[in-house]
Parts: sequence; C-alpha cells; structure tokens
Amino acid sequence: MDAPSVIRTKRDRGELTDAQIDWVIDAYTRGDVADEQMSALAMAILLNGMNLREISRWTDAMIRSGVRMDFSALGVPTSDKHSTGGVGDKITLPLAPLVAACGVAVPQLSGRGLGHTGGTLDKLESIPGWRALLSNDEMMRVLQDTGAVICAAGDGLAPADKKLYALRDVTGTVEAIPLIASSIMSKKIAEGTGSLVLDVKVGSGAFMKNLADAQELARTMVGLGTNAGVNTVALLTDMSTPLGLTAGNALEVRESVEVLAGGGPADVVELTLALAREMLAAAGVHGKDPADALRDGSAMDHWRRMIAAQGGDPDAALPVAKEQHVVTASATGVLTGLDAYAVGVCAWRLGAGRARKDHPVQAGAGVEIHAKPGENVTAGQPLLTLHTDTPERYDYAIEALAGGIEISDPGTGFAPMPIVLDRIA
Amino acid sequence: MDAPSVIRTKRDRGELTDAQIDWVIDAYTRGDVADEQMSALAMAILLNGMNLREISRWTDAMIRSGVRMDFSALGVPTSDKHSTGGVGDKITLPLAPLVAACGVAVPQLSGRGLGHTGGTLDKLESIPGWRALLSNDEMMRVLQDTGAVICAAGDGLAPADKKLYALRDVTGTVEAIPLIASSIMSKKIAEGTGSLVLDVKVGSGAFMKNLADAQELARTMVGLGTNAGVNTVALLTDMSTPLGLTAGNALEVRESVEVLAGGGPADVVELTLALAREMLAAAGVHGKDPADALRDGSAMDHWRRMIAAQGGDPDAALPVAKEQHVVTASATGVLTGLDAYAVGVCAWRLGAGRARKDHPVQAGAGVEIHAKPGENVTAGQPLLTLHTDTPERYDYAIEALAGGIEISDPGTGFAPMPIVLDRIA
Repeated sequence: MDAPSVIRTKRDRGELTDAQIDWVIDAYTRGDVADEQMSALAMAILLNGMNLREISRWTDAMIRSGVRMDFSALGVPTSDKHSTGGVGDKITLPLAPLVAACGVAVPQLSGRGLGHTGGTLDKLESIPGWRALLSNDEMMRVLQDTGAVICAAGDGLAPADKKLYALRDVTGTVEAIPLIASSIMSKKIAEGTGSLVLDVKVGSGAFMKNLADAQELARTMVGLGTNAGVNTVALLTDMSTPLGLTAGNALEVRESVEVLAGGGPADVVELTLALAREMLAAAGVHGKDPADALRDGSAMDHWRRMIAAQGGDPDAALPVAKEQHVVTASATGVLTGLDAYAVGVCAWRLGAGRARKDHPVQAGAGVEIHAKPGENVTAGQPLLTLHTDTPERYDYAIEALAGGIEISDPGTGFAPMPIVLDRIA
Repeated sequence: MDAPSVIRTKRDRGELTDAQIDWVIDAYTRGDVADEQMSALAMAILLNGMNLREISRWTDAMIRSGVRMDFSALGVPTSDKHSTGGVGDKITLPLAPLVAACGVAVPQLSGRGLGHTGGTLDKLESIPGWRALLSNDEMMRVLQDTGAVICAAGDGLAPADKKLYALRDVTGTVEAIPLIASSIMSKKIAEGTGSLVLDVKVGSGAFMKNLADAQELARTMVGLGTNAGVNTVALLTDMSTPLGLTAGNALEVRESVEVLAGGGPADVVELTLALAREMLAAAGVHGKDPADALRDGSAMDHWRRMIAAQGGDPDAALPVAKEQHVVTASATGVLTGLDAYAVGVCAWRLGAGRARKDHPVQAGAGVEIHAKPGENVTAGQPLLTLHTDTPERYDYAIEALAGGIEISDPGTGFAPMPIVLDRIA
C-alpha cells in the first residue's frame, strides 16, 4: 500500500477500500503518510465525495487511532449535543445542566472558536477560575457529582482527527461533508456517549448555507452514529440571524444564566428546550418536561455545581469590556434583516474570536443586540452595542456590518424564520 | 493574499487571477506556501482544470522563479526537441547531432528516467567518461564548438517547477495536463531556445493513453510556446509499441550510433528524420535534407565531437550486462502486439530504470527486440533478449510481459500504426 495509489483511487472517482482507509489513517497518524499527501487526498475527497460505507470506515479508523471512553459505570443514561457552530450559539451552557437536572448525564467535550463562530470553552473561560482542561478522572468525577461536565477533549481522543482538522484548516479542505461528518462523529463516538443530538445550523452564519447541504450532512452524521450504536437525532436550525441577544464570550454566559433563571430571549429558550427534549428522548427518559427544571431552579442548581466543580465561581462578576459603542438605526421601519455572518465577523473583529489557534480571546468583547428581525425600529434608536478592549478596531468591526442590517418601510410584513427547520432521525 | 483563499478559488471552479498565480508560485518557491497547501492546489487544478490564460501565467511565473538563458550570442538559429517520454525513445541521441550538422544549434536540456520510461542522461552516461553536469559556461562552449549539447538543467532554471515536480510525484498529481504542460514549457522557455519541436507520445507506453488527451496537451504546449515567442510545433507519435529494437541505456546508445552510421531500425530513422525536418523548419532553415547528413557521415561527426566535448570516449566499448535470457515465441503466426508499457516495465525491472530519484541504473540492462509487430514468427524463435546484472529479478521482469505479447493465426492481416499520428502547429 502506498499513498499515491490511494490518492489516485479517489482522484479518479473510485471507492476507497476498507484496507486503503485503515492504512492511510493509521500511516498518517504515525507520520508515514506526509501532510502534503493527506491534503491532496482531502481535496480529492472534497471534490469527488465518499459514500456512506467509506465515511463510516474513515470515521471508525479515526476512532481507532486513539482511546475510546466509556461511561457505562455511571449507571445512568448519557446524552450529548453537538452544534455545527453559529453566531450567538450559547445553547450548550444552559442545556447541559438542564438535561442533567432531568436525570440524564451529559459528557460534553467542547471546542474553541475559530473564525466568526464562537467556542463553548472560550465562553466558559470568561467565568473567573473555571478550567476547561480536566484529566479523565476529573471529568468522570465532575460528571458523577454534578450530572454534567463541559471540558476540552484530551489528546488521546481521535488523534488522527486532530491532525487532519489542523491540516484542513490551512489547505482549503474544511468544507467537505464527508470530512466534516467524520470529524464530528469520530470525536463524539470515541467520547462514549450513549445518545447524541446534533444541531446542524443552516444559514449565513453557519458552515452550511443552504438546507439541502445541511440535510445531507445531518443524514450522513445520523447514519454514522446509528451504525456505531449511538442513538443519534439531528435538528436543522436557523442560523440566518444570531441566536438570542448576544454574541461574545462573557456576554453569552450572562444570557445563558438568564435562561437558567427562567428568563432569557425567546429563541434561546425555545431551542434549548427543543434540544433538551430530544436528548431526553434519545436517552430513553420519558415523562419529564425540561421547562419545569428551568422554572423550579433545579437547572440553575446543576449549573452552579458544574461550574464550581471545575474551579469556577458562579457568583463572580463577569468581565466587562473597556469600551462600548452604540450602532443606531439609520431609518424608521421594520428590521427585516440582521445577518448572522455580519454580526459574527463584527464580534470576532471586536476581539471575541481568534484568527489563529494560538491567539487569546477577549472575555468581554462582542455584540449586544437590541432589536431582532420583525421588530419595528425608529431612526436613531440603538440597534447594537459593540464591546471591546481594543477600540482602535471599531472601524474594522463596523465595516463587517455593511449590508448586514436591513430596515424596510414601516408596515412591511415580515415573518421571521422558525428556529427548527427540519428533524432527521 | 493567503494560500487557503487561492486554493478555494480553484476548488470552487473559479479562475485564478494573474496576481494569485504570481503570488502562489513565488511564495511556494520561497517556502511561505507549504507543501501541503501546494498539493491541495495541485489536486484542485488536476480535477477542475485551468484555462490557457491561467496556464500561460503559471508557466511564466515558474520561469520568473529562476534564471532565463539566452543563446542569441551564438549567431545561429537554435532549436530543441522535447519528448513526453516513451519506451525505447532514444531519438534525442541521433537527432541533436543530426540537426547540428544541418546548421541549427541544439541546446538540449534533458532529464533522467523515472518509472518505465527511460531518460536521455541515463542513456548517455553509459558511455565511459561522459558527463551530464555542465556549468553554464561549459554548456555554451560545447554548443559553440560542436553545434549541440545534451546536459542536465542547472538548479537556477525554473526552481519552482523542480520543487513542484517532486511534490506532484508523491501526491498523485502528475497526470494534470495544465501542470504537465507548464512544467515542460517553463523549462524549455527558460532554456532560451529559439524554436521547439514537441514529440507528444500516445499509447500504452506514454503518459497520454489516447489521442484526444495527447492533442489537448499538444495544443496547450504549442499555445504556451507561441505566446512566449518560441516557434513551437508538436508531432503526436505512436507509443503503443517500443521505438526501435532496444529499450535500455547502453543498448539504446548502440542503436543510436547505428542510425548515425546510416543504418538502424526503420521506425527510429523515420521519426528522427521527421523531427529533424520540423526542427530545421521551425528554426527557419530550408533546403537542407537531414537524410543527407546521415548518409554523408556529418551527423556522426557531430555526435563524436559532442560526446568527446563532454568527456566521453565515442570509441569506447559500451557496458554489457552480466547475464542474458532469451524469451521465445510461444506459437507460430503473426506478431500482432508487443506492448510498449509491458516492455518498458520489463526493462525497468531488469535494472534499466529506477524506482526512486536517488537510485542508480544499470548501464547494460534492458530488452533487445528481435521481432516487431506485423512480422511472422515461428514457435520457439527468439522474440526478446533480456539483459541484466541482477538475474535474480528475471521472474519479476518476465511477469511484466504477461499479456504484452500477442501472436495471431498465420496469415492474419495486420497494419502497424503509423509513427506520426498528428501534427499541431
């Protein structure tokens, strides 16, 4: 077996055999297949595709490149949620303790933000003292004690995926459905969750810009999970406009705590409950309404214990950015567009996100939203408040909003998109 | 400008701008674009193509990555020939001195063999004392003194191409017409020849297996040469069966000397004369018949002086392999097939070629052919003699011939392919 012959098979639109896939993933992990060979293969896969058998085997080979975790000793059902990434998508924060409060353990391995989409770990790190990095023993203990844990994936989990993901990022090969699906699912299956709910984002602020691509990705991932014995369901949800009223690390933690306290923006509450219901059903827990756990304070209780178990102080004041700048409405009328990608890039440029993996993020930076699509606005009223520690970048951040805010004539009819667009099981 | 955005342009079937091409070739030569990025781009080019403007600019950028030679000081027209590579293709050896004998200077930068196709420098190195590596000054002096020089390209010539060629070899991206065309033409244009005749091989023993692909490659290269001010013509010639009666280094030198002495196999003489006439016409020299220079000994004279000028002894005995093995006809009838690829791989396995760039070749190894397609053969008569210093590899070499020799019933009508299949100017 040699790398050029494997590459040529896919280049010439052939199917990779199980043996070819096993060999190439193993040899790449060991360094016997070079980066320049794997990137050529990734481009051939992006352009010529893989069928479900190839993607399943690829995923399985990446899982076998490292360790596989097992939570069966917990004695309770487990469920996890994965979002493909969006703007203002803080759902993991209220969702994990909420589902834990309903009796399902949530082992949530999360990532950091890259580009205009935020990362769960970056958000939680704005809580003073909170640690993302846990040993396997610590992770198990937090999960046992509090019913939920949100932490970084260890190095031993699907190391082939870790190496390949970094390569794809610099070689223009991120946007390949077989590679996105196998990357997500190899980590989630290796993580050892019993069931999984996927939140596949659709729209300008998501990887998948249209419903058909998102459906293909969702179907692929549900197929991979099911084949691996993980009960998997996907919701396709709108990412044409930001979720909730904040995009930025500490800003989103504040909003998440509002949801756990029984308040918060309607769209965030709706999506949190929809995903919680799917997770409970996927884990085989019936007859519980997660809305009760928001009302009776038990979700908040689990949040506080989970944060404290990882060194965080749930009562500490959250960081606030040094400077604020208000963006006002340019006209009177109906807000008919607030583009998720525009707001995401704006928040990123304000310092909420990073351009390279090793850059720090600003805890307080981001965008606060004062009006959502469908609302009436008056010329001069505040639409957004921009927060940053680096006000010299305001102009650059505001540039990102160009064309992203649309105000139509007063009285214009406007029906906002529903949050949940489709469900694939 | 950044590499992922250039890669994404081609991945998404866009046209690369001049600025993108200039940047990526320059940054790759300097090491700012990494191998894994260039290989992803090469795969995207292979699968999505480039138009003639893009290929021209790519070629030009590779030329500008190094030095450009200039032979105008010679005061005589110059012409060069390039073959895309075949089995038994020793044409450069008699052709260069023959054209020189007709008053056109031939600055022939040649390469080594890789895989089943032979390399001109490997062949000439079987002549005791002959040196492939010349300084620019030495090259100019040999050209002035003898009218022809065959040597290795210096490091300064299109270094971007050198780097990219090595990368393509290990990443399954060799077979891309835009990259093959720009690789060949960047070296030939940088070499500074005034005119160029391309011998584009078609058939089992060539890169291009069918006429349509070969025509596309030829048209692309003629376009590139013409745009760069080099008078360029292409002949498409048959490579379904080996050229002449030998494949192997010293064996082919011996056959080339026979041609220069006025003898040699008909197909080698025919193609040598066809290419010589094209080179003279492309260089603007009319009224000379190269056949005269074979008859009157002046081509042989130029050969002897050219070999001697590079340290070789034209009278020395050529190396002979330690062992010979005869392959006989399995039946009586008409030889209707002697496959170029099968013979090429057989010669390669006998030691005439190399599997890696840094391997040595055996000077005496190769295949001698005793019957050509269309000839009647008798069961048991010698068809091929295999030569090698490593007889332990006979079985492996003979395996390559399986299915490559076809003998049909006596009296079967058979019309051999013409040598020249098409001409593109």
